[in-house]
Amino acid sequence: MKILCKQEKLIKALNIVSRAVSPTSTLGITKGILIKTEGDMKVSLSTTDIQISITTNIEAIVNEHGGIVVSARLLTDLVRKLPPGDILIAADEKALVTIKTESSEYELQGKEESEFPRIDTEEEGKKLKIDKEILKNLIDGTAFAASTDESRGIITGVLFELKEGVLSFVALDGYRVAINRERNEVFEGEEVKAVVPAKLMREVSKILAETAGGEEEIVLDIDDRRMMIYTAETQVRVNLLEGEYIKYRDVLPKENKVTTMLERGDLLDAVERAAMLKSEGKNAFVRFSIADGAVTVSSRADEGRGRETVPAEKTGEDLEIGFDARFITDALKAIPDDMIEMHYNTSVSPCLIKPAAGDRFEYLILPVRLSTVSI
Amino acid sequence: MKILCKQEKLIKALNIVSRAVSPTSTLGITKGILIKTEGDMKVSLSTTDIQISITTNIEAIVNEHGGIVVSARLLTDLVRKLPPGDILIAADEKALVTIKTESSEYELQGKEESEFPRIDTEEEGKKLKIDKEILKNLIDGTAFAASTDESRGIITGVLFELKEGVLSFVALDGYRVAINRERNEVFEGEEVKAVVPAKLMREVSKILAETAGGEEEIVLDIDDRRMMIYTAETQVRVNLLEGEYIKYRDVLPKENKVTTMLERGDLLDAVERAAMLKSEGKNAFVRFSIADGAVTVSSRADEGRGRETVPAEKTGEDLEIGFDARFITDALKAIPDDMIEMHYNTSVSPCLIKPAAGDRFEYLILPVRLSTVSI
Repeated sequence: MKILCKQEKLIKALNIVSRAVSPTSTLGITKGILIKTEGDMKVSLSTTDIQISITTNIEAIVNEHGGIVVSARLLTDLVRKLPPGDILIAADEKALVTIKTESSEYELQGKEESEFPRIDTEEEGKKLKIDKEILKNLIDGTAFAASTDESRGIITGVLFELKEGVLSFVALDGYRVAINRERNEVFEGEEVKAVVPAKLMREVSKILAETAGGEEEIVLDIDDRRMMIYTAETQVRVNLLEGEYIKYRDVLPKENKVTTMLERGDLLDAVERAAMLKSEGKNAFVRFSIADGAVTVSSRADEGRGRETVPAEKTGEDLEIGFDARFITDALKAIPDDMIEMHYNTSVSPCLIKPAAGDRFEYLILPVRLSTVSI
Repeated sequence: MKILCKQEKLIKALNIVSRAVSPTSTLGITKGILIKTEGDMKVSLSTTDIQISITTNIEAIVNEHGGIVVSARLLTDLVRKLPPGDILIAADEKALVTIKTESSEYELQGKEESEFPRIDTEEEGKKLKIDKEILKNLIDGTAFAASTDESRGIITGVLFELKEGVLSFVALDGYRVAINRERNEVFEGEEVKAVVPAKLMREVSKILAETAGGEEEIVLDIDDRRMMIYTAETQVRVNLLEGEYIKYRDVLPKENKVTTMLERGDLLDAVERAAMLKSEGKNAFVRFSIADGAVTVSSRADEGRGRETVPAEKTGEDLEIGFDARFITDALKAIPDDMIEMHYNTSVSPCLIKPAAGDRFEYLILPVRLSTVSI
């Protein structure tokens, strides 16, 4: 193999494919990048850690066809520090890789292309087109709420559900549920259900942020085992989680006795400040005292106590309710709207946070017992 | 105590005094900030971890005179998250501190002013005026080269030496020596010698960066035990190290057989790239092959090898010499000039790096044996 490419293009591609390189992997080959010629003017870079595989293409002048696997860390670090301009990459029959610029020459021991795991990219599942920004927002608005406890199985994933013209992303961890919805006529008639590991979804979101072009259309291809995500130059394959997802609709409250409408930014600042008063090594808890005209957010710790007043429009009775502060701030950060609503029933039933307008975002949060955490 | 001040001013002052708050200190009171009224329009904030003490003043409306000690971490985190505008801080006779804005009210348990260590600020030593940027550059140009091994005593410090109209900063760690000099007629006739712990010097540099005004004049006051650093609104006290500093002048080479002149940026990039090829868990070593017209910087590791060509003007014989890459890059980063000179004698004698013009900066670096590290 022998190719000539530009440092500026190569480093962008390396930043994308590096996301599938697990630094802790014990499978030596998964720390490598497969560089492979694709015709005379294109080279593909691929990485995989089995759970997630990424391939991206860059322009290059191909002098000699072939493929080679080279250390992802070394190649990325090296190319990052090389100046903009031409880079020649060549591999010989002993898999010795030469990387050469005007003033630099590196020889790295590579591995044969045949040692690299085969990435299955056959297009065989259900296909779906979606705007890049919308897909990224759906991921960012839900993936944070999935369980990070790897032993929890299906709830470490994000549910991807297309039904009746609505694409829903859902994540939950036993204390909260995050739901984002996107309605689009192009979804009509399709039905898809898949659960993607949340940590892989977060990588997909970062890859989408790094690929150029804000309004790009993404093609998804989903079967029983994997989801493929195609952008113009990049394809990502993520394994799905097996099993039936939690019936999350059953936990959504059917009614609400108390509603408050607040400025999202005001409430977020207030809860973040109050959350600073917390017992060491424990989560931060806050008390909401809901009364006419305002929600008072209070906190207490050995070092002192705090009280924040957030103006609010209220309907229904007064209510006292406690929360893990992080669940509230996570939800408030995920909503783009300025005005939000919070719906409550009792101090021990879940609270629903949503934008004042529409039902695109819903965050359901279990309260904590006020007595247990002395707030 | 009862004061009213602006969040914008308070947070700047807290960022400065926080630098003396050791998060790992076991002395409870040294995690606190002493807030003290100074007349009717000024408040001082003080912190100390005994080795370093910082006091800074801000404008405030003083309603009730007094002083109080409050948790540095809580106060800083809270004020950082409060919106710009008025903050009222009051302490009662039980040392309960109230921090209040339009919509927030916090009560923190403070401590009596009398529990705070007395910071000795009597002006009794030798006094010296110096431009802020020059002082900061002298620190940044040397402190990195001091030993970070706390058991090494005097060489964990930076030598501050005023003699014959020249102020020299010197730091060394047994493998390298960094010397920065500032010549100024206002220094004529003065003689001062003091060794300041390098880690405190680095804090002083950061404090200087945070205090407003680039051309501010700093007053130093140095006696046998401590150095005081006075800016317009901030005073810092650092303890000195006891003992005699190493006679560093003895190790400076009297002659040089080989000299190369190079572009600093080119050499820095080349060494940084070559240093990526290193054995795991070990320092990165590079070989300099000095010949007519160029220095070749090469490296070798299990994964491969690299070679960089850096154009250079040479006088003297060809030479092969090895270095710990970090010592070279540290020195090159500290020199502001574009062109540098490197002076050598043999492959086992120290190398001197300096700007092509002048003697303000000198970095002496011990080579490594080429055979030992197989480069």
